[in-house]
Amino acid sequence: MKKVAVILAGCGYLDGSEIRESVFTLLALDKYDAEVSVFAPDAPQHHVVSHLSGQEVQESRNVLAESARIARGDILELTTLDPVKFDCLILPGGFGAAKNLSNIAFAGEKGIPIEPIKRIILSFHKAKKPIGSICISPSIVASALQDVCTPSLTLGNNSTLLHDMKVNSVKCNTDDIVIDVENKLVSTPAYMHDDRISNVYKGIDKLVQKVLEIS
Amino acid sequence: MKKVAVILAGCGYLDGSEIRESVFTLLALDKYDAEVSVFAPDAPQHHVVSHLSGQEVQESRNVLAESARIARGDILELTTLDPVKFDCLILPGGFGAAKNLSNIAFAGEKGIPIEPIKRIILSFHKAKKPIGSICISPSIVASALQDVCTPSLTLGNNSTLLHDMKVNSVKCNTDDIVIDVENKLVSTPAYMHDDRISNVYKGIDKLVQKVLEIS
Repeated sequence: MKKVAVILAGCGYLDGSEIRESVFTLLALDKYDAEVSVFAPDAPQHHVVSHLSGQEVQESRNVLAESARIARGDILELTTLDPVKFDCLILPGGFGAAKNLSNIAFAGEKGIPIEPIKRIILSFHKAKKPIGSICISPSIVASALQDVCTPSLTLGNNSTLLHDMKVNSVKCNTDDIVIDVENKLVSTPAYMHDDRISNVYKGIDKLVQKVLEIS
Repeated sequence: MKKVAVILAGCGYLDGSEIRESVFTLLALDKYDAEVSVFAPDAPQHHVVSHLSGQEVQESRNVLAESARIARGDILELTTLDPVKFDCLILPGGFGAAKNLSNIAFAGEKGIPIEPIKRIILSFHKAKKPIGSICISPSIVASALQDVCTPSLTLGNNSTLLHDMKVNSVKCNTDDIVIDVENKLVSTPAYMHDDRISNVYKGIDKLVQKVLEIS
């Protein structure tokens, strides 16, 4: 049974993890009999956004506590993630990944991951353990690895975010994945496209299957 | 293409809709080519519960705004739900259904649904349009229909909640469904059981397929 670490960044695509991408990651991991541990930073969210209006609201929420809604309480603080104990790593997307796990939402291609995320990604990569990244999260992987390799990753068919990073940006449909064999990276665009939910699930199911296969 | 109304009650199983049950409902509805409209009450949550500690916290959240996190903003206010415009109705579970759509979490078998929910359920039932209910939500359906029929529904293998209601309480595994042919009611236990996520998905997929089939 493969041991998989999944990192969340809140609960809701505008200020946290994309809920459906996170749930589909957990569903596919269970379907393919993986053992899953979910992690998130114990830190305030960058901000809180109303998913009705799309506007920022004057509230404060904690990334770990909100992520726990998706994880049904079965979640650990990010700094306790020891890459030695896992076979692979998966990062679902949502603006929360770009806002709470990095500053990419604000600094674009010059953005960098928060320290534990950079250390964790570098550690999995160095140990030749696969990293799956969904939606906006491939930009975090690209940023973390910029000094060690030129990875092949996707942010879908339209994004220009990766263009100025040291990365081979590959176009990809929602129901498909991009595989970087050498660096053991798998990515899928998910809600980078305004596509139907069943295509988002197909892409994530393929990603999870491939990540487990090469672990 | 069948038109389906889905009612949410927040975002998180302790104070809102069970996130995974809601997402799997939307996934299965898209997989089987249904046209979906999501609704929730524009009202304060009964309370806010930390999904880390399980304890109530001093915060206020709106049911519609939190449900919008699952619906990605594509959601309507509950009182605008006109049963005439839909072929069937699905109610995902979570304590939020028992707390925000009814008072069943507090009053048990004497609990009743909030007014629009009771009116909506009675209206679908009277028009012989199917109602799918997941997890704790069959208790809301049972309560709403208590004056018009004795429905067959499930709350899984362990619950005694329905025992004192006018209902034929049927045992059922997580990956299966209970069908009340006469009343066009379909139910599945989902997270009434502490079961694996892939079994929860199997049960909900079966429920959605059956609800659409008899619509």
